[in-house]
Amino acid sequence: MIARVTRQASSTAAGSVGTVDTRFFDLPRPLQLDCGRELSQVRVAYETYGTLSPTRNNVILVCHALSGDAHAAGFSRAPAAESTRDGFRAEERDGDLRRGLGWWDGMIGPGKAFDTNRFFVVSSNLLGGCRGTTGPSSTNPSTGRPYGSDFPVVTVADMVRLQRALLDELGIERLFAVAGGSLGGMQALEWAVQYADQVDNIIPIASTHALQPQGVAWNAIARSAITADPDWQSGHYYGTGRAPIAGMGVARMVGHITYLSAVSVNEKFGRRLQDAHEIRYRLTEPEFEVESYLRHQADAFVKRFDANTYLYTSRALSYFDLARQYGGGRLADAVAGVSARTLLIAFSSDWLYPPSGSDELAQALRTAGKDVTFHVIDAPYGHDCFLLEEARQTPMIQHFLASEGRGRT
Amino acid sequence: MIARVTRQASSTAAGSVGTVDTRFFDLPRPLQLDCGRELSQVRVAYETYGTLSPTRNNVILVCHALSGDAHAAGFSRAPAAESTRDGFRAEERDGDLRRGLGWWDGMIGPGKAFDTNRFFVVSSNLLGGCRGTTGPSSTNPSTGRPYGSDFPVVTVADMVRLQRALLDELGIERLFAVAGGSLGGMQALEWAVQYADQVDNIIPIASTHALQPQGVAWNAIARSAITADPDWQSGHYYGTGRAPIAGMGVARMVGHITYLSAVSVNEKFGRRLQDAHEIRYRLTEPEFEVESYLRHQADAFVKRFDANTYLYTSRALSYFDLARQYGGGRLADAVAGVSARTLLIAFSSDWLYPPSGSDELAQALRTAGKDVTFHVIDAPYGHDCFLLEEARQTPMIQHFLASEGRGRT
Repeated sequence: MIARVTRQASSTAAGSVGTVDTRFFDLPRPLQLDCGRELSQVRVAYETYGTLSPTRNNVILVCHALSGDAHAAGFSRAPAAESTRDGFRAEERDGDLRRGLGWWDGMIGPGKAFDTNRFFVVSSNLLGGCRGTTGPSSTNPSTGRPYGSDFPVVTVADMVRLQRALLDELGIERLFAVAGGSLGGMQALEWAVQYADQVDNIIPIASTHALQPQGVAWNAIARSAITADPDWQSGHYYGTGRAPIAGMGVARMVGHITYLSAVSVNEKFGRRLQDAHEIRYRLTEPEFEVESYLRHQADAFVKRFDANTYLYTSRALSYFDLARQYGGGRLADAVAGVSARTLLIAFSSDWLYPPSGSDELAQALRTAGKDVTFHVIDAPYGHDCFLLEEARQTPMIQHFLASEGRGRT
Repeated sequence: MIARVTRQASSTAAGSVGTVDTRFFDLPRPLQLDCGRELSQVRVAYETYGTLSPTRNNVILVCHALSGDAHAAGFSRAPAAESTRDGFRAEERDGDLRRGLGWWDGMIGPGKAFDTNRFFVVSSNLLGGCRGTTGPSSTNPSTGRPYGSDFPVVTVADMVRLQRALLDELGIERLFAVAGGSLGGMQALEWAVQYADQVDNIIPIASTHALQPQGVAWNAIARSAITADPDWQSGHYYGTGRAPIAGMGVARMVGHITYLSAVSVNEKFGRRLQDAHEIRYRLTEPEFEVESYLRHQADAFVKRFDANTYLYTSRALSYFDLARQYGGGRLADAVAGVSARTLLIAFSSDWLYPPSGSDELAQALRTAGKDVTFHVIDAPYGHDCFLLEEARQTPMIQHFLASEGRGRT
């Protein structure tokens, strides 16, 4: 079993984990879900970086956001065009994309925030995903056809249960840390509550204990754009030759603008016209640069992502609510059992996951007597910052992971 | 001619202009458009409130926003279900809707901000509209069929030219004031620049000289939702039995959330679940109250509004840019010829038309030596405030209209 989890890098450039393979684990038993159903024949796609220590006490689980996958660091063997990452700013990272770099490569590697000289980093595609882990596009063993919308509605807690099962398979009992941005941070929080005695540190970044109501609305709108597309076909579009790419494009545009700030849209595009010094009086063709940009983002996204996975993942992150799930509505009660130290990072211009939400969580943790550090990074790029502000996050994370804690290596 | 413009109210309750009829004016000559095309057989729907003074110097033109119409004040004779208004907060105004009250009834009437004891108020449906004024759903005289997307792309300047033609017909040379919120405020600004010698005062509320880039993006996304709907049929859906109501619904949801603030979504809905104390694990059915609300808003809107009008109007308000149109990119140059006094009102929580934009405009007007008053009302309800904060706007407007000015009555 250990042989499967030793370092997978075949070549290591300075600061890089090198080229990595995505591996797969087939769960030997059904996965019980919050909704009361169970899933059989569940597969998990995962990657690992660094070396597992003999005492297996140096494991960091990184969790991806809505549109990500298991390929968090290093170069992928897959054709570059097939490579993916969280992708919020894929246009900023075209070079990375062509080279198949992982979505958090700037944070994971030798000497980086999650230092693979010290830590063994595990990253998996989440439950309901479309990048190797069982999801709505997978075959339903009871019908032999893709699940489509017969796939059960999954929760962040379900996603974490599957990660727990993967780690069992890898022979890992405790996690030194769980880290992630956005939905990834929700998974870290879920770990700290659901498996309180198995996690030493959590690092939720640009994340929250419960999405703000405005975020719930944006997610509902994005899902509506997909389900309003007749090519969605009530979720059973696989094999029909039609998929809800138009609706997915609109959903992605909505998401994309919520990941940016007004300031960053101003700085990046302003009101500049596309290919022209004057308006051309066109009803549907892009006129402004920001319009072209959104179409490009939409077109790129629909090629690499499954619409049903978008729906299920969006639903899961909207449902996530620590206070409701574990505290009878009281956040401090929900985190009463947490034993992990917590590092919260938020970004001043992130209006989708605003610092005020992280502050509310930090206060609840302090009220419950927990060890919590909360940093707000003053940066103008909105929710996107968690993928862009690597340089400023790195020392915070390194310092946090190096300082005294119950389970430090 | 004057007979047509005397007070239309048939009964007047305290503070109300009473029951009003929408009237129609057929332009006797083609309308020349910015795009280079001309429109023949143009009709304008309009209403008037109050009495035109013998010297015709007491006229206030009010201009509606994206989804409005000519019925700004009083009760409509039309069946209540057919009545419409700007509608941003129709749910707040269900009583009004049933009674057929105009979209700015709280501001127009005896003793109100636009006091019909003193002023003669004119309101018309804008060019490209779907509530009586010629627009894409009107018959193209050269084909005998509805224009659809053959309708020319119109601008705010074109809308204002049509208002000028209507006022010519009504025998009105000068305007004491032009007022409006959002897109309506853009029309007021356009009046002050395009017809500088014919306007004494303008009152742009929650408006701007040029939509912020983030607003350009939201509008592009809303339009994409409509054009991505196969029932849009490249704009030629009239008479086919199919219309892009699904896409329009998504567009309206996007618009609606941008009209609210994060705080108002929190206050109004929070994360409350719909009809349940627990989540029900449903992929597409509304779970949160805010999800149900958005669907309700979308369903109501698609019944009363034409998708092509949405497209054309959204395009016009995205194009609008005083500095580009009139100042070679410099806002102060664009407003150099303005002679009207200006009252700008913005709302602290309006992130779609932020106070910073109004401040930029106020400074440009001051730089150009103009008479400008700028108020920011501290209120939490976002762009919606311009329809909700009547009580606080009223004294500002009354004071402004009563104070010394070149053209006061």
